[in-house]
Amino acid sequence: MTGGTTLRIDREKLWNMIAEMGEIGKGAAGRTRLALSWEDLEARRLLARWMEDLGLDVQTDAYANIWGVRAGRDAKARPVVVGSHIDTVRDAGMFDGVMGVLSGLAAVRAMNEAKVETERPVAVISFTDEEGGRFLSGGLAGSRALAGLTDIETLKTKRSPEGKSWVDALNESGFVGNGRLEPHAYLEYHIEQGPALADENIQIGVVRGVVGISWLRVTFRGEANHAGAFPMNRRHDAGLAAARAVVELNRLALELGQGAVITPGQLNQHPNLPNIVPGEVVLTVDIRQFDPVSLEHGVNRLKEVVRTAGEQEGVAVKVETLVQTARAAFSEEMVSLVERKARELGYSTKRMSSGAGHDAQILHGLCPTGMIFVPSKDGRSHCPEEFTSQEDMGNGADVLLQCVLELTGPFESAD
Amino acid sequence: MTGGTTLRIDREKLWNMIAEMGEIGKGAAGRTRLALSWEDLEARRLLARWMEDLGLDVQTDAYANIWGVRAGRDAKARPVVVGSHIDTVRDAGMFDGVMGVLSGLAAVRAMNEAKVETERPVAVISFTDEEGGRFLSGGLAGSRALAGLTDIETLKTKRSPEGKSWVDALNESGFVGNGRLEPHAYLEYHIEQGPALADENIQIGVVRGVVGISWLRVTFRGEANHAGAFPMNRRHDAGLAAARAVVELNRLALELGQGAVITPGQLNQHPNLPNIVPGEVVLTVDIRQFDPVSLEHGVNRLKEVVRTAGEQEGVAVKVETLVQTARAAFSEEMVSLVERKARELGYSTKRMSSGAGHDAQILHGLCPTGMIFVPSKDGRSHCPEEFTSQEDMGNGADVLLQCVLELTGPFESAD
Repeated sequence: MTGGTTLRIDREKLWNMIAEMGEIGKGAAGRTRLALSWEDLEARRLLARWMEDLGLDVQTDAYANIWGVRAGRDAKARPVVVGSHIDTVRDAGMFDGVMGVLSGLAAVRAMNEAKVETERPVAVISFTDEEGGRFLSGGLAGSRALAGLTDIETLKTKRSPEGKSWVDALNESGFVGNGRLEPHAYLEYHIEQGPALADENIQIGVVRGVVGISWLRVTFRGEANHAGAFPMNRRHDAGLAAARAVVELNRLALELGQGAVITPGQLNQHPNLPNIVPGEVVLTVDIRQFDPVSLEHGVNRLKEVVRTAGEQEGVAVKVETLVQTARAAFSEEMVSLVERKARELGYSTKRMSSGAGHDAQILHGLCPTGMIFVPSKDGRSHCPEEFTSQEDMGNGADVLLQCVLELTGPFESAD
Repeated sequence: MTGGTTLRIDREKLWNMIAEMGEIGKGAAGRTRLALSWEDLEARRLLARWMEDLGLDVQTDAYANIWGVRAGRDAKARPVVVGSHIDTVRDAGMFDGVMGVLSGLAAVRAMNEAKVETERPVAVISFTDEEGGRFLSGGLAGSRALAGLTDIETLKTKRSPEGKSWVDALNESGFVGNGRLEPHAYLEYHIEQGPALADENIQIGVVRGVVGISWLRVTFRGEANHAGAFPMNRRHDAGLAAARAVVELNRLALELGQGAVITPGQLNQHPNLPNIVPGEVVLTVDIRQFDPVSLEHGVNRLKEVVRTAGEQEGVAVKVETLVQTARAAFSEEMVSLVERKARELGYSTKRMSSGAGHDAQILHGLCPTGMIFVPSKDGRSHCPEEFTSQEDMGNGADVLLQCVLELTGPFESAD
């Protein structure tokens, strides 16, 4: 089956499609397509049109996950699913998620043009609300729902800062359907979003799994007081307690080592006026590590650190767990498939874990799952500077195509 | 002139008026009447009605400062001015500012009821935008304008976070007039907003002046990156740099001593999402001290501290001075007047400087100026817990009344 002419992705076409989708939601800095926002829906309509243009059967489910199916010879066989997501964080780059979905379409295009028939169907999917920032849903909402790990009742409780609920946004989206996807295998192609591949000049990252992640919300409750009239030694400054916590959390991450990362990404101070001692701070803390025992240890240490910071300032501390995601260790069969195909195409490879969460970690519970990484310039991601070269993008897409061809079963050109 | 029955404030009536105004803008926590907001205008309408009920001639000027004049025998004499402000911070108590303005009305009521005639007129004033939080104007805007220290052109540049300019809000207020106030002397009666009087169980604070204040805006510009994929040692975390600065600024304030206070009151982080390393933080820092040489030294040290915090994280730091207010040292004649009147009424007194900024510090440049403080429970202020007892309130109002009677010249009852 690899004896014939090796199929290749049309790299320029794929590049242009990524750029075209990158125009949607574009602002002064990057683009913003928060889940189920107007901009996300616009991008979905473009995606659906592109799927239809390729002859795919476009379907959606109760959570607005959207996929297009290319039929196989065996009408009853479960499809090989490839994809990612097209929602973004605020002021995002154009590759995160989008490259994986559109590379799936590029693979279909190559197969269509070569009139390839496969045993199993291929489905190219975009999952709903992968990023999680808009509704503080923790992300991976669409894939979690597909796997039965969340549901409408839970998502009803997730709200944007303006008070919009996840489910209201879903119902207004126009993308709710009654499709049902049962994957035979899942492959997600994504930018690394870190500096490891670029630093070592490696072309393809062979992902062995995704780190475990915990999101905690820490509330520091002190005393709002007049900035001028209240002496330093009588204050209970929630802002100072939070600042001590942020400094100590950084020290903790370095001390934990072994790839542990801790990020106090969101900090909201009240009343947040220049002439008032901060009375309350709400801080989110994101902690990640591949080894589950180390992660649990890290979370416990983290709780100690924030409590100690509060005690130092006489400030009450409440810690809530917002999200907990177990690590996913992908099956060796999928990891070695990606590795083999990359090497057959002549690319350098490196086995690595993903520090970022991906829908693949959820699909991993449903079917054999793998991931392909390509380098991110300077490791930048979730920012306008996010960049992957057309060459690197094309390499990964070709690996994806070759994996799909193997997973869908023996094939031959219809010519 | 102090030989007759000493006039007294109607304490219950004054208390009830403070409570009634405190209902305007009331929310779940305290009341919010930001300068020239709908709530501030509602409170102004109530104030104007109360002034008219007392027979005062209500006037406003080009900056919407509002005052009511009680005529004196000498129609050409400059008035003795008493007052403060009725705008508030967010989630405020009901005493700050309001007590001073309404005690002025209570003094007029006592004089009216006793049919007192004075040589000079008395004017009870409420200054516009004392607090400064809404438009980041630095506060004291109305009194500054009266003193020629700011003007319409400057105030046009001051905007609320939603983009409303100070001057647009002014023009829509309905309180712009063509009055012109030329004070003979100014007296401001206010809660202490700190714990000194309550801690020492003193009834009347005799204010010798107001500390100098600087507001700085510090911008930390780092790199927004993915929270999971970007290792700790490759980050340029603006949130961490800002946290280091907040911790070190607290250490600096304690080290400076001599009453120095430093408050990082407003912190805005971008993009402020849980799964992104903060790329930028904008922090305001408020620093105050009575001795001007010490304050200048403190500001210089502050700038070093924030720059060092940025350098530690490879984060760029920009420091801008938003506001600088020189300290005001009141004239001994006014300070001793307040002290003498308080002692004549049998109250314990303490000379002190004010750590909070007040319109009095601006009026000080125009005319002999003094201030009267009364205890704040637990030193709390700028928060719903702000509280001064009816007894303390009444003591200070009686001192105010006696000072007004002396400053307006010999008087006699018309009976």
